[in-house]
Amino acid sequence: MSKVLPAKGFRDFTPALKRRKEDLLTAIRATYRRYGFDEIETPAAEPIERLRGSEGGENLAMIFEILRRGLTPEDVKQAQAAGDLADLGLRYDLTVPLARYYATNHAELPPVFRAIQIGPVWRAEKPQKGRYRQFTQCDIDILGEPSALAEIELIVATLDALKAVRLTGATVRINDRRFLDRLLTEAGIGDAGKARALILVDKLDKVGRDEVARSLVEAFAGSGETLAAALFGDNPASPPEEIAQIIDAVRAVAGEASIAFDPSLVRGLGYYTGPIFEVRHPASRGSIGGGGRYDNMIGKFLGQPVAASGFSIGFDRLLEIIAEREAETGPASDRVGLIYEDSDPSARVIARQQELLAQGLSVRLVRAARNRQRMFDELLRAGYGRVQRVSDDASTFRKLGGDA
Amino acid sequence: MSKVLPAKGFRDFTPALKRRKEDLLTAIRATYRRYGFDEIETPAAEPIERLRGSEGGENLAMIFEILRRGLTPEDVKQAQAAGDLADLGLRYDLTVPLARYYATNHAELPPVFRAIQIGPVWRAEKPQKGRYRQFTQCDIDILGEPSALAEIELIVATLDALKAVRLTGATVRINDRRFLDRLLTEAGIGDAGKARALILVDKLDKVGRDEVARSLVEAFAGSGETLAAALFGDNPASPPEEIAQIIDAVRAVAGEASIAFDPSLVRGLGYYTGPIFEVRHPASRGSIGGGGRYDNMIGKFLGQPVAASGFSIGFDRLLEIIAEREAETGPASDRVGLIYEDSDPSARVIARQQELLAQGLSVRLVRAARNRQRMFDELLRAGYGRVQRVSDDASTFRKLGGDA
Repeated sequence: MSKVLPAKGFRDFTPALKRRKEDLLTAIRATYRRYGFDEIETPAAEPIERLRGSEGGENLAMIFEILRRGLTPEDVKQAQAAGDLADLGLRYDLTVPLARYYATNHAELPPVFRAIQIGPVWRAEKPQKGRYRQFTQCDIDILGEPSALAEIELIVATLDALKAVRLTGATVRINDRRFLDRLLTEAGIGDAGKARALILVDKLDKVGRDEVARSLVEAFAGSGETLAAALFGDNPASPPEEIAQIIDAVRAVAGEASIAFDPSLVRGLGYYTGPIFEVRHPASRGSIGGGGRYDNMIGKFLGQPVAASGFSIGFDRLLEIIAEREAETGPASDRVGLIYEDSDPSARVIARQQELLAQGLSVRLVRAARNRQRMFDELLRAGYGRVQRVSDDASTFRKLGGDA
Repeated sequence: MSKVLPAKGFRDFTPALKRRKEDLLTAIRATYRRYGFDEIETPAAEPIERLRGSEGGENLAMIFEILRRGLTPEDVKQAQAAGDLADLGLRYDLTVPLARYYATNHAELPPVFRAIQIGPVWRAEKPQKGRYRQFTQCDIDILGEPSALAEIELIVATLDALKAVRLTGATVRINDRRFLDRLLTEAGIGDAGKARALILVDKLDKVGRDEVARSLVEAFAGSGETLAAALFGDNPASPPEEIAQIIDAVRAVAGEASIAFDPSLVRGLGYYTGPIFEVRHPASRGSIGGGGRYDNMIGKFLGQPVAASGFSIGFDRLLEIIAEREAETGPASDRVGLIYEDSDPSARVIARQQELLAQGLSVRLVRAARNRQRMFDELLRAGYGRVQRVSDDASTFRKLGGDA
């Protein structure tokens, strides 16, 4: 029989990975709650026109569309012509749903609303190693706070959440969209060329400084040199006042190395209106999260302006780093395999399990296998440090593992 | 502007409800882990033909189908004719994905695999009060254990999980599909009539005993009376030996009132092959969970038989009961609202927050509002028991609430 796999581009979580995932999410959630953030949840699906009409850039081409229900063959032809074969779509991020949520529920929310959102999003990406069509985003957003205090709190809380999952060495890079725009203007690049220039600068991670500088000079004779010097030169531009203020406040509580100005940081999405930031870690080539201020988006469904800033952790990349850094949890003596034979009465097996559970132990029932070594190895791998047979005295345990 | 709502039939979770949901799931997950169950996660989407080919009964008509990508207008016509406009579908339960997961990963799983699955499923139900098109299932399954020990452990662990969320008064009703089949045979109902008879009996909750008895008599002259007497009469059938054994073992550890035999329990789904059970609570008209043995399903993708039994909690109904029974958590003194003025420097605000966080407090930043009473009321509602102004001394708190 051929191998049965998840749908192409999707993945399963094994017990070990799922346990780690839930433990990390619990720690991150607890941290954000301590900062007074409130978790919300929105549906996986939103009306397709809301998603299509959003500022998702290239993500809009990757929406999984849900077929309209109850279409007759005749309907299909018409729906196809009208471009509405689908009426719902799976969310591609958590920001569009947040804007919709805020429009739906703002009457019951505090004037400054700090939101936690943790959940799956879907993008029909070309399948490749480490990139999946369903992945977890872990976002915090502050709605209704126009000052830089929002950015400071988002960055400090995110660094704290990473500390809570024992990830040390994470650093934030920060820039400002308005500042980037001014650099472009000052270099002599007009509005018509700005988007193209930003796309070139945004390739920095992939192609390096020299190649970006070369491409800028090639695309914008004269201006390209000026811009490249401001971004990468010996005397790069210094940060605007608000960014300097954010950096100072973050450093005061999270340490000198926690954050740095990076005038070449662009971040792809078009909706940012102010500070933008990314968090990096030596173990990951790309960023493990990012965000920024996007004052023109949350109010869109509501029809009134709402100040907004957010920070999103790319949870799957974080999980990957943590899984690589930390060995499996070793076997624990409070996890017990309770071994039963077919001849043991069920009632006796379950009563013994209860007895051990009542002592605060975790107790997995284990059907006695002929290959005892393999049975013990499996228990050890699953983190069980001791075993007991139902026929043993209830106080008799056998330790598993080499140094038993 | 007209009200912006979630897609029809879907719902948002407010901060209060989401907090309760996550707290309940944490408690349930911890209980099942203590019984040695391993949590896994599968993707929301599976190939559509797997879902369509599954034994989902009426759920198969409620699958949300995901449009095949990259179809040209010409393709649409052909795909429509071939019936494959969609290539993926959203899962309608967690059992079909479990069977697929087991087929994919069985080589790495222990011989008896205890699975926890907690996650959303989707059904295109007709929208109605309290029923949503996306809802959470919370399943445990034991794969590879053919004896009644599986059912005993599933039932005991589920009752324990309900205890962990402080739901008292839950009781299990149990029956056996093979036993029901024998009752039908003994009453003289042949194979041709059995499915119809079970559908009539399964309406018990909705129409009551008298109406079920009447409909049985009407549909199966002679046999109907015998069957009704066996199900509801003064001397109803006594449980088969295996069911009696399960009941005894569960009662020994969970109490006399925890479980009872119910010969009229049917459970809709066709795939059950042995014991079937439901958990009920006085606060809910229908069941809040159920399950049973389904030995012919998990092995389907694998091509070899796998003993399987499972118990699924209808989590949204449970959440509803708990939310009705328990008042909102009152304000806690370790949750502090830290009030800042626009004139307070951001760095000072964030440093003060860190100071309070370091004392183990949860600290929400609160922009000072002109309407102070409303600001305090909102904090109280969100569970904050004390406030402090950034301009106050760091040890000065003001208690919120009536008996301040």
